[in-house]
Amino acid sequence: MLTEKKYNSAILIIGNEILSGRTQDTNTSTLALWLNSLGVLVKETRVVPDDKEIIVNSVNELRKKNDYVFTTGGIGPTHDDITAESISKAFDLKYCIHKEGFEILKSYYKPGEFNEGRQKMIWMPENAKLIMNPTSGAPGFYVENVFCLPGVPSILKSMLGGLENIIVGGKPILTKTINLRTVESEIAKSLSSVQDNNKDVEIGSYPFFKAGKLGVSIVSRSTDKSKIDTCISKILEFVNKKKIDVID
Amino acid sequence: MLTEKKYNSAILIIGNEILSGRTQDTNTSTLALWLNSLGVLVKETRVVPDDKEIIVNSVNELRKKNDYVFTTGGIGPTHDDITAESISKAFDLKYCIHKEGFEILKSYYKPGEFNEGRQKMIWMPENAKLIMNPTSGAPGFYVENVFCLPGVPSILKSMLGGLENIIVGGKPILTKTINLRTVESEIAKSLSSVQDNNKDVEIGSYPFFKAGKLGVSIVSRSTDKSKIDTCISKILEFVNKKKIDVID
Repeated sequence: MLTEKKYNSAILIIGNEILSGRTQDTNTSTLALWLNSLGVLVKETRVVPDDKEIIVNSVNELRKKNDYVFTTGGIGPTHDDITAESISKAFDLKYCIHKEGFEILKSYYKPGEFNEGRQKMIWMPENAKLIMNPTSGAPGFYVENVFCLPGVPSILKSMLGGLENIIVGGKPILTKTINLRTVESEIAKSLSSVQDNNKDVEIGSYPFFKAGKLGVSIVSRSTDKSKIDTCISKILEFVNKKKIDVID
Repeated sequence: MLTEKKYNSAILIIGNEILSGRTQDTNTSTLALWLNSLGVLVKETRVVPDDKEIIVNSVNELRKKNDYVFTTGGIGPTHDDITAESISKAFDLKYCIHKEGFEILKSYYKPGEFNEGRQKMIWMPENAKLIMNPTSGAPGFYVENVFCLPGVPSILKSMLGGLENIIVGGKPILTKTINLRTVESEIAKSLSSVQDNNKDVEIGSYPFFKAGKLGVSIVSRSTDKSKIDTCISKILEFVNKKKIDVID
């Protein structure tokens, strides 16, 4: 039997605003849910500052270890936007005006509005492929397996559709959650034994506190629905035996 | 003149639930704002899965490069909570019952409630120092410069106060934001020249779209208030010249 190929990815969040605590990153979650639906796992996320050397080293480390790398942030027109220049350096490519990108922005803006600041956004690694931006014109780009997206969440989201035919993944990663009215320590041992007997399913246990009541969410993840179902039935077995309530 | 020592830190978020996109990390922002107030910069955040080898390698890499490392997540009672065991391995310490921690939880729970699941929470690296938990009993811990905190945001927050006398930092990192009714490309060149002439201040430019209107937040960060003030006045100079509105 052939082992199913697994597709891994890493996310590189570029931006001082995340590391300063000013801005809450939401792109990791957006990208992860989207990638899982395409059968690509996210193995690691890193948040790094607007520092060329750090970006270059991170990209070079992550692109060797993963099938795909997604960067977010740093592709705007200001001095702190250094992603395109850094990616050029990481791949040892010329950093120059992208002809197709230039034409796209030239026709996107009104005559006279395509100023120097805006032109910076189409300086890219030579021969980079474009990722179209249906929201605000300026495209993202990719070189080999490194995909560079903007940091603004709504714009990033709008650009993912254009990548769905490019990203090759495995079977979609399926998730099933059961919420229990209990605490983790009550079920830890039984749950651990279900995990031991079902190695192909990743079982996570997450306590919550909602509307004044404690509970635990048990999350089962796998590409194989029948294996998830087996896990769930084993979990419900001990849940019933312990007379724990299942919450909708 | 002596150069002011800078204190750097890294955050290691441990948990499949963040990488799957199920849960939005908010601990990075909480820790970063708190650390900045103590004069400690966050240089990097990594999110890694519940995988012992990856955690060990990440901790060992980050603790050598930074004054402090903060981990979040993976210190509960279930099978996927492997932070304490991983930290023991990273420091080559015995992973065993922490006597002081044991006494704390024994008196925290009612007689008979301190079961095997709960006892797992006081298995720690030998001689680890405890971080008290005013919310739910189970303490965090630290070994040398690596501080291990829980993943549940409200519990993590409640434990930071206990660390303020332990973390030694530099001058608090101050932030000042100006919001402008403009687009980035209009100010990119002028802002870049202010940054070039004020290297000790980190200037960030962040577009926003609120209540149907576009704007840009300019964030200036430094430990020196007078240097921030100089930047701000230089920014306001070109803002006034360009007749750009400043928004409250």
